[in-house]
Amino acid sequence: MNFNDKLLKAARSNESLLCVGLDPDPELMPPGVSVLEFNQAIIEATYDLVCAYKPNLAFYEAMGVEGLRALAATVGCIPDTVPVIGDAKRGDIGNTVKAYARALFEGYGFDAVTVNPYLGGDSLEPFLEYEDKGIFVLCRTSNPGSADFQDLKIDKQPLYEVVARKALEWNKYGNIGLVVGATYPEDIRRLRRICPDMLILIPGIGKQGGDLSAAVRNGVDSDKEKAIINSSRGIIYASKGKNFAEAARKAAIKMRDEINSYLKGD
Amino acid sequence: MNFNDKLLKAARSNESLLCVGLDPDPELMPPGVSVLEFNQAIIEATYDLVCAYKPNLAFYEAMGVEGLRALAATVGCIPDTVPVIGDAKRGDIGNTVKAYARALFEGYGFDAVTVNPYLGGDSLEPFLEYEDKGIFVLCRTSNPGSADFQDLKIDKQPLYEVVARKALEWNKYGNIGLVVGATYPEDIRRLRRICPDMLILIPGIGKQGGDLSAAVRNGVDSDKEKAIINSSRGIIYASKGKNFAEAARKAAIKMRDEINSYLKGD
Repeated sequence: MNFNDKLLKAARSNESLLCVGLDPDPELMPPGVSVLEFNQAIIEATYDLVCAYKPNLAFYEAMGVEGLRALAATVGCIPDTVPVIGDAKRGDIGNTVKAYARALFEGYGFDAVTVNPYLGGDSLEPFLEYEDKGIFVLCRTSNPGSADFQDLKIDKQPLYEVVARKALEWNKYGNIGLVVGATYPEDIRRLRRICPDMLILIPGIGKQGGDLSAAVRNGVDSDKEKAIINSSRGIIYASKGKNFAEAARKAAIKMRDEINSYLKGD
Repeated sequence: MNFNDKLLKAARSNESLLCVGLDPDPELMPPGVSVLEFNQAIIEATYDLVCAYKPNLAFYEAMGVEGLRALAATVGCIPDTVPVIGDAKRGDIGNTVKAYARALFEGYGFDAVTVNPYLGGDSLEPFLEYEDKGIFVLCRTSNPGSADFQDLKIDKQPLYEVVARKALEWNKYGNIGLVVGATYPEDIRRLRRICPDMLILIPGIGKQGGDLSAAVRNGVDSDKEKAIINSSRGIIYASKGKNFAEAARKAAIKMRDEINSYLKGD
């Protein structure tokens, strides 16, 4: 099953557009719990509430080889029915980017990855050739500094829109999605219009201050799906105590239900 | 000693602007030689001929945990007098990019890294705060597809020039450099004029078809240094036989001398 189908199947069966970011940070995790134990407990507590998981590789790389082992083991303990998005934001050229694609898809076995578009279409081609995988192109990122380049106007059109239109053009295998920050809900609306059928991965809810209601309403397609609403810290660090997994479950239920209430137009 | 000083010291003492890319590819390496053995032999054969080494992380990641162990061990066997540029092209936001900076500078101990500017200035700040390290911002990449976005005009100015001007503005610690592909020698000239004092890392010689003469002449500053000319495959895969290290040494001498002849105006 390709990534898009796997994602929609999980979203429908769990009635959830919520993606949980698995970003282990020793300073925020409960004391005495290993990264793998932490992730396992979070996954066991939430796998029936999410449409996907999204580990960001930076947090694992910061822990060296042991961190990467924990990442591989984490991917291994996510149920096959729930897709895993490797948030790697990679970008390089030619034979180099082939090596990244191999590492992410064949090594870790991610169902999808995030990539950086700055190097252009040929730099993404080796990712796209994995036709069953999902490729989320950074389009409009959630940080304030995204304005530095993404907002620049090319013939009155901001760069992030140009990126979205290029993504449409490159999408010959139908496996491209966009990353658009929840902190820019009006841009989500505009990009959803430009790319009516693409998956949109939306980080920036919670700590970063994105507006969940606007992100959901503006992000979904006409079938009210195809938006993936990510939350990391708000869910996995809901408690630093022994009850962290239970607290994560409660936070995930709350957010999933809130998302669903916006979908119903409440 | 900070990265810029370490780089210039190595360049002067070895009379070389040559950087050797340590990009191990099992299909091109001599049979029966491990990645670490291969790199060690290349380093022993060339460390007195280069101003820096540049391992690209993709090739190591493609080999899984063992590849990353080999990368760490490779960095460990490069003499302290020769700086190491981790070619990672990372980019992410806030606390995430902090984790990448920690992984690259504190974990692997790179003297410098390459980063992707698409996410904007705040996304690079955690790298820049390592004041003694070098941060090479992707500006004009060597691949044909770099035109897709980097050539787009913002008020008649191509995006890669806007990136260079922003890099100047962000350079409060004096530790930013640019990455500019040898395949665009006229752009190297223009960027050198915009950033007269910055280090410019120039990949794209050899296999990619960049013009060495133009890259060197256009890349150096007024003191005829501050350009780092990278070659990977042309040096490390000069031979696939048992004599690969000796062949790499010969190729490195040839290229270093050719670079120096262009500097003398031959």
